[in-house]
Amino acid sequence: MATLVLLRHGESEWNVKGLFTGWVDVTLSPTGEDEARRGGQLLLDAGISPEVVHTSVLTRAIKTANLALEAAGLLWLPVRRSWRLNERHYGALQGKDKAQTRAEFGDEQFMLWRRSYDVPPPPIADDDEYSQYGDARYAELPSELKPRTECLKDVVDRMLPYWYDQIVPDLAAGKTVLVVAHGNSLRALVKHLEGISDADIAGLNIPTGIPLRYELDGDFRPTGPGEYLDPEAAEAAIEAVANQGKK
Amino acid sequence: MATLVLLRHGESEWNVKGLFTGWVDVTLSPTGEDEARRGGQLLLDAGISPEVVHTSVLTRAIKTANLALEAAGLLWLPVRRSWRLNERHYGALQGKDKAQTRAEFGDEQFMLWRRSYDVPPPPIADDDEYSQYGDARYAELPSELKPRTECLKDVVDRMLPYWYDQIVPDLAAGKTVLVVAHGNSLRALVKHLEGISDADIAGLNIPTGIPLRYELDGDFRPTGPGEYLDPEAAEAAIEAVANQGKK
Repeated sequence: MATLVLLRHGESEWNVKGLFTGWVDVTLSPTGEDEARRGGQLLLDAGISPEVVHTSVLTRAIKTANLALEAAGLLWLPVRRSWRLNERHYGALQGKDKAQTRAEFGDEQFMLWRRSYDVPPPPIADDDEYSQYGDARYAELPSELKPRTECLKDVVDRMLPYWYDQIVPDLAAGKTVLVVAHGNSLRALVKHLEGISDADIAGLNIPTGIPLRYELDGDFRPTGPGEYLDPEAAEAAIEAVANQGKK
Repeated sequence: MATLVLLRHGESEWNVKGLFTGWVDVTLSPTGEDEARRGGQLLLDAGISPEVVHTSVLTRAIKTANLALEAAGLLWLPVRRSWRLNERHYGALQGKDKAQTRAEFGDEQFMLWRRSYDVPPPPIADDDEYSQYGDARYAELPSELKPRTECLKDVVDRMLPYWYDQIVPDLAAGKTVLVVAHGNSLRALVKHLEGISDADIAGLNIPTGIPLRYELDGDFRPTGPGEYLDPEAAEAAIEAVANQGKK
């Protein structure tokens, strides 16, 4: 038995602008910073004390972790980071306006890129201004490992080795583990944990800033459904995301 | 040849109040936060890109690291933390007013506690409100390892294993290493690096928020004197500390 807590980063500056973000390293909006602090307060109020933290290498997740941990009095926790927890790489859509893209390519193509399990957007060129090809934080990744675009299936494939090799050992040691990451890397993890089908995962949304707790069994599978530490706010946020972009 | 950068945390809330702090986990003042950001900017301006970060487990050092790294666009760096990089434990003086302590015990005793190499203040009781005996972050330390008071010699003794076992391997791998810590844990490290005598170390002050760079040889010793990235500000700050508490 171990406890796993997932936390999706708060609102980013590009969420506000309505741009596809992916691996572009934008920071939190002031609202996102408040969400992060509130996430930490929810942990504190629930009496959950993570003992180790895992984040992506993107600023919006790291800042969310830092602000939440500070609010919970846990800034001193050991933390590890990996590109394998990054948001889905959005390919050539990175930096593009969501509404414009929808208007340009139509509803069907738009929803296929956003929610299909195995259809990635077109790849981004390595010299595109929104490519992370030359970014120092990925210097240790051989070229074939650097994504130019990803569908959710790709995210599952590159996230799982980190789950198995880095997070599971912490859980096996009996530690309460906090993972601070992104909408799609967390959807990929929840898909794995709950055994959600490739078709059904399209319907899963994870709200920002609300810790999601799982109790895991000896085989690192949930003993029951994940529990949001603020269920009402989570439900309202999931509803809002489901309605996003509807005309 | 490897590069080592030392950074002392910015002004804390208890620096402002003139209280002995030690292991008490106070946060940065607004001025301290600005110092931290400026420290990151100085790294950026000097073209120094740390590849790994080490901090103490005290909030004021961790926040300094986080703010400096964010200013330098390096929030994603791997970071490791250890109590071995903590500030000197100030024993029974923790939480006490510096001016009152000086008035109560006299100049000679006051300076002995502050600057002698091997005379610690009286130990703090484990149930004192300013003891960290039961703090969760030290849960993995056996009782005999938890300090009740420390002189600078004690800090050297408990810091060096971290230097040898955790920092030197990063330097040996050719990495540029940033250490964000405290006045006395950094004095202990500089004493070791520069081979400063027990007597002469009393005269060494390290200013807050100004990165101090060393180039190290193959035996992990400096090839020359440490270089502050803002020498004028460092000199002025050292002067100010030297005059601190003078009547």
